[in-house]
This record gives sequence, structure tokens and C-alpha cells, in this order.
Amino acid sequence: MEQIINANNATQYPSIQDMIVPGQGLKTPPVSPFFMDVTLRDGNQALRKPWNLEEKEIIFKRLLKLGVQGIEVGFASASRQDFEACSYLASLAPENVSISSLSRAVEKEIDLSWEAIRKAPKPRIHIVYPISDFTIRNVLGISEKEVKENIIRSVSYARKLAGNYGEVQFSGEHFGDSLENMEFAVEAFQAALDAGADVVNLPNTVERYRPYLFVAMVRKVAEALPQGSKISVHTHNDLGMATATTVESFFAGATQLETALNGLGERAGNTNTYEVAIALHNCGVKVDLNLQSIYETSRIVSRMSGVPIPEKAPLVGDDVVAHRSGIHQDGVSKTKDLKKGAYRAFDADLIGRPEGDRIAFTSQSGKSAVYEILMQSGISISKEEAAKLQPVLKNLSENSGGGELSIQEIQSELEKLRALESPKDKYLQNR
Amino acid sequence: MEQIINANNATQYPSIQDMIVPGQGLKTPPVSPFFMDVTLRDGNQALRKPWNLEEKEIIFKRLLKLGVQGIEVGFASASRQDFEACSYLASLAPENVSISSLSRAVEKEIDLSWEAIRKAPKPRIHIVYPISDFTIRNVLGISEKEVKENIIRSVSYARKLAGNYGEVQFSGEHFGDSLENMEFAVEAFQAALDAGADVVNLPNTVERYRPYLFVAMVRKVAEALPQGSKISVHTHNDLGMATATTVESFFAGATQLETALNGLGERAGNTNTYEVAIALHNCGVKVDLNLQSIYETSRIVSRMSGVPIPEKAPLVGDDVVAHRSGIHQDGVSKTKDLKKGAYRAFDADLIGRPEGDRIAFTSQSGKSAVYEILMQSGISISKEEAAKLQPVLKNLSENSGGGELSIQEIQSELEKLRALESPKDKYLQNR
Repeated sequence: MEQIINANNATQYPSIQDMIVPGQGLKTPPVSPFFMDVTLRDGNQALRKPWNLEEKEIIFKRLLKLGVQGIEVGFASASRQDFEACSYLASLAPENVSISSLSRAVEKEIDLSWEAIRKAPKPRIHIVYPISDFTIRNVLGISEKEVKENIIRSVSYARKLAGNYGEVQFSGEHFGDSLENMEFAVEAFQAALDAGADVVNLPNTVERYRPYLFVAMVRKVAEALPQGSKISVHTHNDLGMATATTVESFFAGATQLETALNGLGERAGNTNTYEVAIALHNCGVKVDLNLQSIYETSRIVSRMSGVPIPEKAPLVGDDVVAHRSGIHQDGVSKTKDLKKGAYRAFDADLIGRPEGDRIAFTSQSGKSAVYEILMQSGISISKEEAAKLQPVLKNLSENSGGGELSIQEIQSELEKLRALESPKDKYLQNR
Repeated sequence: MEQIINANNATQYPSIQDMIVPGQGLKTPPVSPFFMDVTLRDGNQALRKPWNLEEKEIIFKRLLKLGVQGIEVGFASASRQDFEACSYLASLAPENVSISSLSRAVEKEIDLSWEAIRKAPKPRIHIVYPISDFTIRNVLGISEKEVKENIIRSVSYARKLAGNYGEVQFSGEHFGDSLENMEFAVEAFQAALDAGADVVNLPNTVERYRPYLFVAMVRKVAEALPQGSKISVHTHNDLGMATATTVESFFAGATQLETALNGLGERAGNTNTYEVAIALHNCGVKVDLNLQSIYETSRIVSRMSGVPIPEKAPLVGDDVVAHRSGIHQDGVSKTKDLKKGAYRAFDADLIGRPEGDRIAFTSQSGKSAVYEILMQSGISISKEEAAKLQPVLKNLSENSGGGELSIQEIQSELEKLRALESPKDKYLQNR
């Protein structure tokens, strides 16, 4: 192990100054991200019960409503049903959305992809082929030279089929594992571009290492390829870092981002569209999506995939707007009318979520919670009364196991307190 | 918006060379991370039903089994029950584990923290106080000068109480929001160190922006403080990037990592201990945890918190070892006996998970799936037979809705195929 901190060969960390425009905020690339959605392909192939045509159409229409720039509709050569689904969805595609079908570097698969999607206004043939040393040796069992020849042959073939109006995308599968043969990875992508690919996609097929390494690899490819080359990333979430890896790859030069609704996909999933979109939006990037449809979309996709939304899922989880501890509740209360909230990560309105910050009273809660909960329920209370009521409620919660109190329980304790505080007034009122 | 790519003022990306030792692998800091667990404090305060003493003890003992270096046992001044829990857990603490109680920068809270944990072999008073411009103005409503005075006063007070053997940690709450007043943030941490803090903690109290920005901020503090200062990070997962942010902060100089079991904590949770540990382990960092207890721990914590483990949760989710698509199944099959698997993100054994790669047959599956599923069930089949059986099974799956086939269904189709292929042999066998 080597010392990296304060050493001469230290990692060059980007400085804060690199990332901000003083007085204006965060620096952003001059483009909006191109969201290439893979829910219907990578997402679907990992489902316990892959979708039928009718279900795929519902997802497809949600994607159009969300406003993604591209949709991978399937793997046309995988089966008759896949072919028909690709073909049907392509026929529904509007003018401005790229429609892609995946194929391996095999002519007959490429033929079927093209056949299925050619009627879309913006068809895209997507070819995937492994480029990491490990996979070349252990899965393909051929030489790098042969890999490159197969890339050139298949991409050239697709280029001819697609002619002038179709697009061709080449994915170097297992790019994230190609640290040992990075030179070859660059060569493979260059060969794909030379053979006519419009986009090269750099997948972190399996997430194994630190995000900075993947982003540095993306950066290296971006710098090695001709300026203006369209670079895409496709990251998986095996260690829980796919969102970060994709977000930072965008800043490093990848303008196409392959993501999936609800983060569906192989194993721990593909990169979550909603998280990437909001993270970039928060950084000042112009994200061309209808962010307001995120919440509703997440519900529909969960129901249709049979994959529940975790209650603590960023942005869309049931529980992520709840505040139960005293310090947090106080901060929420004091900043509730400001644009930024002390403990509010996002505005519910931004993603079309019906409910914003929710304050609940547990044994961990403070006087601000009492005040906010009652005021929000239309029951007037002074801050002094709230402060007096808090220890009473805390005891009640602790004695009943520490859980959340209902509004009825809170209100009933308020009434008892008021009766106690002014017995005479109370007496008079009740006469 | 400014052009950052290929511009003179571009973000300085760390290069691959910065991160590797040629021929050896990834470069790592010369220390092991100090895991300061916050499940019993930040995790507990966000539960719908906070834990009682008995439940806290179970979690505490799991943490000892996992082998974390520090445990924040609670917020002693929050209530009588909290005090008692802190005090009781401190009495159970072994020699080598730091035991911390949180307090605001208020003498009476610090007194209660110290009173509760002083009997632990390694007690630590933890003081949290906001340092971001936004929070100072909108929640505290005082000047930076007063904030600094309060930090100095409270840390000095804690230092005196803790004497020579107790530790003092200072957290600058909302550090991640302090871009506007970074100079002050550095000043605040320096003041805390000068007043006697042993550790300064840099929280991303709410995750709002890109990870590189937070890490650059951590780096700036690390560079500004005296060499050897102990720096900690505590990140939240509001945009799904907490694991990445913590992992990269470690490489940037933060040696203490505050994380929680199952990622429990306010809103979308605290940083997930398991993900950070395995990501660092994969990068070659020596992680001093009993990684083998991760899987079991995740189950216990889920049951006790009432927060289910998402089926696609990295490492511990039920579904993250399943492989259903043909290309992936083929890669899994071809690399199943190698140290690295084409689509295996981690070894099940590493985290004590009973089941490794699981291949299931759906309409998306290939011949390798047929071969592996039958061979694993003790049914011999040749690769040729598997290739013949695959389209039959695919049809069967498609016609029954596309879902997973059972081993019985697969075996029954194999028998039919064999009967069909060699009617005579079959006839002879059955005589």
C-alpha cells in the first residue's frame, strides 16, 4: 500500500474552484444529458416475470410522458415475442425519440434489430460486444485482434443497413473491467467509430471499484477519441454507487446516460433515472425531462414490475419526507417557507409528489413537531403550549413503546393540558 | 453555463495513473477506515418506532460482532430513556470500541452525554453544531462569530470533562451546504481542534449536489487543517450517492467513516455500512470488519427496524444474485469457477450469504441456463441437449406469461425431449 495523501504522486483531486463559477453556482457542461432509457431491455430481462406486449406499451408511454430522448425497446433477436414487441413499439414512436434494439455482434441479430425498428422515425441499431481482457479470455476465448475484427465487421454491417437515417451504437461490454487493457478499450471504441458508429457506450457492466476510477476511465476514452465523439455511460448498482458514477461521468464528458425507471435491471439494478435527473437538476444542469411525472411513474413501474419501492428510496420512497427527531423538526419548521429547507433534499412539487415534509411525533421528537403537527391539522396552539406539551407526549410515546402518536392522541393531551392550566376558564366554558 | 470539457478552466480529473500502482492494482491510503456506527443514534431517531433498551442491546451486540471501531449509542440528553440506554450500553463496551453520545453545543447536554458514557473504556463526547451560512442565518439566527464562540466554549467544556482519556468529536452540521462560507467552515473546524477536539466530522447532512463537490470540500478541509488531524465524514443518501461520497472521501483523507447498518437514518438514510465496506475491500483497502457477518446482520436489523431489505439492495437484496438473461447466464456459467465472475459483483461467502449466483429460466434465458439449472439439480445433461431444450422452454415460458419455470417443468420437458429423440431406446428401457 502506498501513501496517497500529501505524497508527491497523490491523486489529483479536482478543486472546488474547478467546479464553481464564483457568485453564480456550479459549473455545468454546455449540453443537456441525452437519457437513453433501458427499462424495457435491461430492466425487463431481469424481471421475475418479463412484461408482455400490453405491459411494455404502458411502460413505453410512460417513458414518452417522462420525455426521455431515447428508448431501448428490447432485444429483437431474443425471441419472436421480443421481435414483435420491438416492432410494435417502434411503430408508436414519435419523431424526436431514438428507438433502439440490442444485438450481439452477429449479422442475423443485427438484421432482426433493424427489421424490427426501421419504421421508427429515429431507429438505432445497438451492438454489444465484450472488450475487457477478462471477458475476452474467459467468455469469448478469442484474441483482441479477433474482437476488433468482429466489432469492425458488425458495426460496418449495421452502418450499411441503417444507411443515412438510422443510428448505430456500439457498447464495449465490461468496459468498467478493462483497466488491464485500457489501450485496447480505446482502440475498440475508435474502431467502432471508424466503422460508422454514431455513439459509443461505456458500461460499468458490474460495479466493482471506486467511482473515481470508472470516471477517470471514461475521461481517458473521451480524451483519446476525436473531439465531438458521442460518449454514453451505462452503469450498474452492485455496490450502490451507480447514480454517482453516472452523474460524474456526465461532468466528465459522457452526454448520453443509460438509465432505468425505478433502477430496474440485472442484479442490484441499472442506474436510477430519477436520482440522476434530480442530482443533475440540483447542480444547475438543464435536464430535459418532465420531472413532475417522476413520482407517478415510479408507482406505476413498481406495480407493473412487482418490485416494491423501498420505503427509504431516494426521492420516491414513502418514508423519505418524514422527520421524527427534535433537531430536524425544528430545522424543518424554521425553513418551511424558504426555497431551500434545512432538512429538505428536494421539493415534493418538483417530482409531482403529493406530500412534502412530514413531521411525526415519536419519543425522539421535539416541541417544533408538536407545533407543526397541530397547526397543520388546523388546531391553533402557541409555541409556549407546544413546549409544555412536548414532555407529556414524549412520556406517552415512551410508555406506549416509543412509536408515532396519532393526531387524536396529541389533540387529547393538548385538551387535558389546557383543562389543567386554566380550570376556571374551562369550567366557565363548559357551563 | 460554461464549457468545462476541453476548456482551459476544466475540472482537473484525477487520472487512472493517480489511482493505480502499475502491475499491483489500486493505490490505497496507508490506513484502515475507522467505522463509527450511527445506527443506534441517527438510525434509531428516524424509525417509526424507535428501539427500546432490549432492542438497542441486540443491535449493539451485532455491531460488536461486525467489529466496528466506534458506536454512537444515542443522544443522552434527549430523554430519560435515551440516557439510560446510553449508560447501559456504555457499561457493556469492550476495551477497543469508542462509545459516543451526541449533544448539541450546550453544557447541560454535554454533561449528560459524559455522565452516560464515562464508564465505557473509550468514551467520546460528540458535539454537533451548524456551520453552513444558510443554517446559521435561518435556524440559529446568530452571527458566524457567535457560532465560533459557541463551538470553542462547548468543545473546551467537553475537553475538560473528558480529561485525558475521553475523546471529543465535533461535527459541523450542514458542512455539505457550506460552499458559500467554506472559509468559515475551515475556521470552525480549526477552532474545534484548537479547543481540544480529537476528531472533526464533516457531514453531508442533506445530499444536494454532485459527489465530486463534497469530496473536494473534504479535501480542502483536510489540506487546510494541520497534518494528522483526524477527519470524519457522515453522509446522507437523499440522491442515492452516499456510498460513493463516503468511499471517495476516504481516499481523499477522511479516515473515520460514519455509517449505519442497512443504511438506516433520516429520510433516505445514512450511508450503508455494507456497501462502503465491500467497495473499499474490493479496492484493496484493509477493512477491519467481520465482513462474513454482513448478511446475517442485515436480516436481523431489517426484522428489528421494521424496514424491509429492498429485493434489489446491493449485496444483501434477495434478487441481486439472480441471472435471467441469456448472455448473462452464459457468462456466469463460463466464469463460475474463477475468482472473478463475469457478472458476479461479489462472492457470497465474503459477506456470509448462503447463496451465490442463481440462474433462473424465464423467456429471456439461454441454453447455459438450462445446462446450469439441471446440472445444479443433479440432473446430467449435455450442452447439445441444453441447446435443443432452450427454445422449447422459452416457448413454454412465453405461453405461460413469461415468468420463471420451476425445476419440475424444466425436467419434464427434458424427459419429453429425450423420449422424442430416441423413441427406440426409450421403448427398450421401459420394457
